[in-house]
Amino acid sequence: MAGMRVLRVGEAGAERLAVLDEGGRLLDASGVAEAIDHHSLSGGVLDRLATAKAEGALPALDVRADRVRVGAPVARPGKVVCIGLNYRDHAEETGAELPAEPVVFMKDPWTVSGPYEDVLIPRGSVKTDYEVELAVVIGRTARYLDSDEDALACVAGYAVSHDVSEREFQLERGGQWDKGKSCETFNPLGPWLVTADEVPDPQKLTLRLSVNGVERQHGSTADMVFPVAGIIRYLSQFMVLHPGDVINTGTPAGVALGRPDPKPYLRDGDVVECGIDGLGTMRQTFRQA
Amino acid sequence: MAGMRVLRVGEAGAERLAVLDEGGRLLDASGVAEAIDHHSLSGGVLDRLATAKAEGALPALDVRADRVRVGAPVARPGKVVCIGLNYRDHAEETGAELPAEPVVFMKDPWTVSGPYEDVLIPRGSVKTDYEVELAVVIGRTARYLDSDEDALACVAGYAVSHDVSEREFQLERGGQWDKGKSCETFNPLGPWLVTADEVPDPQKLTLRLSVNGVERQHGSTADMVFPVAGIIRYLSQFMVLHPGDVINTGTPAGVALGRPDPKPYLRDGDVVECGIDGLGTMRQTFRQA
Repeated sequence: MAGMRVLRVGEAGAERLAVLDEGGRLLDASGVAEAIDHHSLSGGVLDRLATAKAEGALPALDVRADRVRVGAPVARPGKVVCIGLNYRDHAEETGAELPAEPVVFMKDPWTVSGPYEDVLIPRGSVKTDYEVELAVVIGRTARYLDSDEDALACVAGYAVSHDVSEREFQLERGGQWDKGKSCETFNPLGPWLVTADEVPDPQKLTLRLSVNGVERQHGSTADMVFPVAGIIRYLSQFMVLHPGDVINTGTPAGVALGRPDPKPYLRDGDVVECGIDGLGTMRQTFRQA
Repeated sequence: MAGMRVLRVGEAGAERLAVLDEGGRLLDASGVAEAIDHHSLSGGVLDRLATAKAEGALPALDVRADRVRVGAPVARPGKVVCIGLNYRDHAEETGAELPAEPVVFMKDPWTVSGPYEDVLIPRGSVKTDYEVELAVVIGRTARYLDSDEDALACVAGYAVSHDVSEREFQLERGGQWDKGKSCETFNPLGPWLVTADEVPDPQKLTLRLSVNGVERQHGSTADMVFPVAGIIRYLSQFMVLHPGDVINTGTPAGVALGRPDPKPYLRDGDVVECGIDGLGTMRQTFRQA
């Protein structure tokens, strides 16, 4: 299978599947599948897309890639599992010890939104924070895996994820982190799915995030405490990962929580750009809910 | 709308929608909808079922209710949100303080399984525990609700939920509870959805759970720290509840974790029955994964 960038373009709720070709043109893939989801991934949609593309069977779309609305590549994951404190520098900045094994929490799958959609600052929030992350999209069922090879074979592809977090809700409102991770629109994902074969080593990716043009995060997946293969293998001992599930693999240093007072939490009108080399860049404006 | 018990009967993956009538007969509702899910609840499926039933438009199914396989009434919720330590006696038995506001965590929605399906004890588990809970199925979008009345208007119905929990994974393996809550088959749900109008007061329900015929939990929703309406109103400040989402509202005292050593954690072959008066009873055999 040749590497591909797969995305969804069009108005919200009426997106069609598309492939971005090497020349930056959009190809219409709606004849192959409606979406990238549990059903289509279980049916081998990525292989079918690659074949159709190789055969020239995907007609060009009559829109420019930079002029069309883009939806999340996986609109509604079966679950969104997140790994906490998974970069050495981020664990340090938050004052946490390096975890002995992966810290696991979840986001509401409904929080997934398009790469350029506005993100809503929850009512009553004063500590809305940013986190750029490498997202792993699962393509094959993972259950009690033994090896890193088996783990990586379960990856359909990668994307940029913004694990937006409300720190007061997460840390000061009674126990578990999920409360500050699942607010409306809190998981921009995109801009497209890059198939796994296009990413030879997921531990050599540079992540960047800026707020209003000022760089706030700049890290490398080489700095992960638990690498992608290890995360998948580990999670598969505790839960079944299904095609269409998404894993947010943690964020590097530089979040507002880890900075000196007054911490630069996000405010109405702030613009966050976040990207990963080779995977693309997203941009969201934050608005008061 | 007259109260109804709505269920899914048939082989796994090929269930059809049915209504259990007052005489204990199954009526075929597959002509009205395929399932109780986000899509059908958003389209008013319960009103349409009630109308069809009142008009005698649901033909009898040629199977006995006690002889047919039953699937979970909501097979794949958009999310499963759980409230921790929500019964006074359970918070006490686990040594936890009474929470000042709801403790919120999540289960993988893929863990939902049928009311009589085997539950798998995870490999390596020595602390698999039972928890009978009142499940709330959301029927209408809940977002920043102001009143208990608005909150209860968002309830499609209720069911019995078994929030199976692995205590070592939950409490001794690095931080967040979700890790011990999301193992394969860990959320039996059923035996059917009882529509909200059939439950005039969700705070007057008796819950019971037995292991191998010995009663282990016997509580009342009157003992909840945060009642159903309050939970929904509270959650709607932190996340959007969508039709088809499920809330597990907490468990009363009597779980293995809260008992003296040696704690009676579940073993291969154990049979758990759990039920709520007026909502029905489920029964699962535990098997080693």
